[in-house]
Amino acid sequence: MSSEPAPAPAPASASTEEIEADLSTATISKKQLKKDARKAEKAGKASQRQQQQQPQAEEADPFAANYGDVPVEEIQSKVISGRTWTDIGDLDEAAAGRSVLIRGSAQTLRPVSKKMAFVVLRQSMSTVQCVLVASADAGVSTQMVRFATSLSKESIVDVEGVVTLPKEPLKATTQQVEIQVRKVYCINRAIPTLPINLEDAARSEAEFEKAEQNGEKLVRVLQDTRLNYRAIDLRTPANQAIFRIQCHVENKFREFLFSENFIGIHSPKLIGGSSEGGASVFKLEYNGQPACLAQSPQLYKQMSICGGFGRVFEVGPVFRAEKSNTHRHLCEFIGLDAEMEIKEHYFEVCDIIDGLFVAIFKHLNENCQKELETINRQYPFEPLKYLEKTLKLTYEEGIKMLKEAGTEIEPMGDLNTEAEKKLGRLVKEKYGTEFFILYQYPLAVRPFYTMPCYDDPAYSNSFDVFIRGEEIISGAQRIHTPELLRKRAIECGIDASTIASYIESFSYGAPPHGGFGVGLERVVMLFCALNNIRKTSLFPRDPQRLAP
Amino acid sequence: MSSEPAPAPAPASASTEEIEADLSTATISKKQLKKDARKAEKAGKASQRQQQQQPQAEEADPFAANYGDVPVEEIQSKVISGRTWTDIGDLDEAAAGRSVLIRGSAQTLRPVSKKMAFVVLRQSMSTVQCVLVASADAGVSTQMVRFATSLSKESIVDVEGVVTLPKEPLKATTQQVEIQVRKVYCINRAIPTLPINLEDAARSEAEFEKAEQNGEKLVRVLQDTRLNYRAIDLRTPANQAIFRIQCHVENKFREFLFSENFIGIHSPKLIGGSSEGGASVFKLEYNGQPACLAQSPQLYKQMSICGGFGRVFEVGPVFRAEKSNTHRHLCEFIGLDAEMEIKEHYFEVCDIIDGLFVAIFKHLNENCQKELETINRQYPFEPLKYLEKTLKLTYEEGIKMLKEAGTEIEPMGDLNTEAEKKLGRLVKEKYGTEFFILYQYPLAVRPFYTMPCYDDPAYSNSFDVFIRGEEIISGAQRIHTPELLRKRAIECGIDASTIASYIESFSYGAPPHGGFGVGLERVVMLFCALNNIRKTSLFPRDPQRLAP
Repeated sequence: MSSEPAPAPAPASASTEEIEADLSTATISKKQLKKDARKAEKAGKASQRQQQQQPQAEEADPFAANYGDVPVEEIQSKVISGRTWTDIGDLDEAAAGRSVLIRGSAQTLRPVSKKMAFVVLRQSMSTVQCVLVASADAGVSTQMVRFATSLSKESIVDVEGVVTLPKEPLKATTQQVEIQVRKVYCINRAIPTLPINLEDAARSEAEFEKAEQNGEKLVRVLQDTRLNYRAIDLRTPANQAIFRIQCHVENKFREFLFSENFIGIHSPKLIGGSSEGGASVFKLEYNGQPACLAQSPQLYKQMSICGGFGRVFEVGPVFRAEKSNTHRHLCEFIGLDAEMEIKEHYFEVCDIIDGLFVAIFKHLNENCQKELETINRQYPFEPLKYLEKTLKLTYEEGIKMLKEAGTEIEPMGDLNTEAEKKLGRLVKEKYGTEFFILYQYPLAVRPFYTMPCYDDPAYSNSFDVFIRGEEIISGAQRIHTPELLRKRAIECGIDASTIASYIESFSYGAPPHGGFGVGLERVVMLFCALNNIRKTSLFPRDPQRLAP
Repeated sequence: MSSEPAPAPAPASASTEEIEADLSTATISKKQLKKDARKAEKAGKASQRQQQQQPQAEEADPFAANYGDVPVEEIQSKVISGRTWTDIGDLDEAAAGRSVLIRGSAQTLRPVSKKMAFVVLRQSMSTVQCVLVASADAGVSTQMVRFATSLSKESIVDVEGVVTLPKEPLKATTQQVEIQVRKVYCINRAIPTLPINLEDAARSEAEFEKAEQNGEKLVRVLQDTRLNYRAIDLRTPANQAIFRIQCHVENKFREFLFSENFIGIHSPKLIGGSSEGGASVFKLEYNGQPACLAQSPQLYKQMSICGGFGRVFEVGPVFRAEKSNTHRHLCEFIGLDAEMEIKEHYFEVCDIIDGLFVAIFKHLNENCQKELETINRQYPFEPLKYLEKTLKLTYEEGIKMLKEAGTEIEPMGDLNTEAEKKLGRLVKEKYGTEFFILYQYPLAVRPFYTMPCYDDPAYSNSFDVFIRGEEIISGAQRIHTPELLRKRAIECGIDASTIASYIESFSYGAPPHGGFGVGLERVVMLFCALNNIRKTSLFPRDPQRLAP
């Protein structure tokens, strides 16, 4: 049976470009979204009418039962047939000769002749090529071939067929096998012209460059268009991989800390005051009381330590009403937080971070190869360099390295983004790692609840952690006595009466403790060297974006 | 060496009762909280002054280095001593003769004579009795004995000593061993009179009844007082156990679904419209746009299915601005949500629920015995009865059972709480299970996106799941075609234009799918037969409570 090498990229459709142009401005309006939706819908209906009218004139097809649109009534939980569905990812040479039933998205539809066509079906990161050849033996009519190629891309399709081995490897992810189609049914049609063409959305920079060299112009789907039609954009192999990686990071975070006797908690997101003060807080009314959204679980995880849990972690949303429109800020992100009793030294916290992140990196490299390769295909990146035992440098050592390289830092100030990037490069050159801890920050640049250094109160028992020159973790020993906490709050210009119950909770018997917080989206972004945090947030929220 | 059976309950302190009385009203004011805090602080300072003055007149103590208050400077990460700390939970007979170093909370302080005292140290759910006997050989002076008993309850204390076997079992959780104290240092003193006495907070109903029979009056710490001082209340053994159980439920939920090819996702909590309509939505301003807090991840998990993830789950906060002041409603709770492609029938979702919850119940019974016993000691309950294969009844079968037992239900209405409770009892009697699925609910009582039954549009492909007669899970097949979805929205009186982008996303190629949602706090509450959901929320939020 004939097999075909990879299909050429489909030409960009006009309407995709149109919508692209409409939405290439930074601000997205609801109106625009609705307009696009109406436009797409109209186009869809027109095309469906066309399709429905076409087959009327045909002669009767003896194999008519082998294909067609399945009406929604048939999928309203009418039967449990007991049939077995096969996952595309499970298909390999061993399946050759077997009859299989597959449900997938019609990614590519390619007529070769009246008697032959190819349909590439996709499930998540896997695709398989299905071949239709009209033949009375196989029960495949020319009408059936036409039906298959008349399907709109991204329609949900059931295919029954026989697994065969192609003569040469295919470009579908399942290269070793193809399916000789016996039956094909459409479960749910997509509108004929989608606002995003999936092939366009899945292209790498290299493909764009190559096309340009050949004088071709490919459609580029911009970030905002992607996010406006996220339900389609998420289907690209890279996005399928990114959010699987994200889930693995969270799993490993929880698993590692749980094995170290941490307990997972959930602290409230609706709170009476602002969690760490400052202007970047979302305010709302709570049954007649003023309330706000938690900017971090900081106070609650500390209260949980006072509550006797010893070691706690939390995975949950964090809300920041920031106006920052950068590649690394979101107004809502997932915080990975931990807090623990310490016996003597906040390095006990650093040791946990060391073990935790080395475990996460190893886990991803060992268990997510397919996902990492998939991301790499669209967004190429070098694997993260890290040491088995994480490097720790003092803040002073850091600014000394920067100074020697020509960058002056105000000694008691903080590092700006540029300085952090440069330090990252210097550390990578000198120590061969892109993951390190910088500790003993000036007290003045840390929150009031940070424990000062015992021998120099200008410094603090705190640290930041960097991946590829960007800060991802902040942590510290916290003040555990009410007297020192009150003193530091006042020194930092905070009205101690507004946080009286927080301060008071340390007078009920509070153990020394410390902890850290990290943004899940940043970990994934930096591990995969992606250039924008919106790529690692499922439905990102930034100062402009509240939809979908 | 002498050992002592359990200490008698300490007499209730006057100030605890005072605060109790102050806070027994249902509404909590911030003012009241501050007033209490000031009162407690004042008492604390006075008592500290007293303690500090006492030892001045004494003669020099050759063993003075073996005890004392450790100044905060010493705990500002000054040293890494390399000493080994022992966990109380790890102490057993095998440790006899060993020198150990333990940090814990001073739960009980009991002077026996000038030369002898007992200190019970606690870590989470474990306690151990420490014995001080003045003796020059042991380096223990009478001043040291006095120092130990002068500590305030709940202070954080380091004890060094030798593990010995008592002659008879002790009432501390670590019954087999006690510690002969050699050194004792206070790391952080608690104020002498805490707003809640932990012994009072940890009592079972049986203890209250027994005391009443003996003519004693024990202090009862009411729910609101507990929650006002949650950082203390959380230290009771039952609370330590409840939140460990909660973590286990979440772990198993994630682990089971992940093993079934679900991916964990995080959907936004800040959204443009209201997620499922209705009045019970928290509204806020989002950078100049009107926004609200998600009442469920419903639309987003469906969009994720449209986005090609196949199967997704989410663990995250859910916000309901409900006015319901019941034992089972919260304004913020943790939703455990799942959504999955279905091939033919929503029973595929029910099968996942069956496997998932049976796995959770088994896991808790097998791996959390200590936690369950600990909860049982304060809040006795019968183990949950469930079947290996979860019972499924139709809604009609349910109302027939109720009718036969004398309760008439409006045929196309919903079950009220009372009817649900009664059905739970009937099912338990007839089928021997307290966990079952009721399916095929009337369409009219389900959300607009619920798939109607194929053969009777008055019913729907939906279900609720019950534990001990209370509904904990709602689920259904969802409508996956934009036409039917729009039709149903309009029939339900929803302005389809407000959810246009949600509806539209089903025209981009959407597979048939279904899912369910469940509240984490309810699962824990009902598994342990607790009487109030505030017991299973770390810092609960109800119509009155926004603090701490």
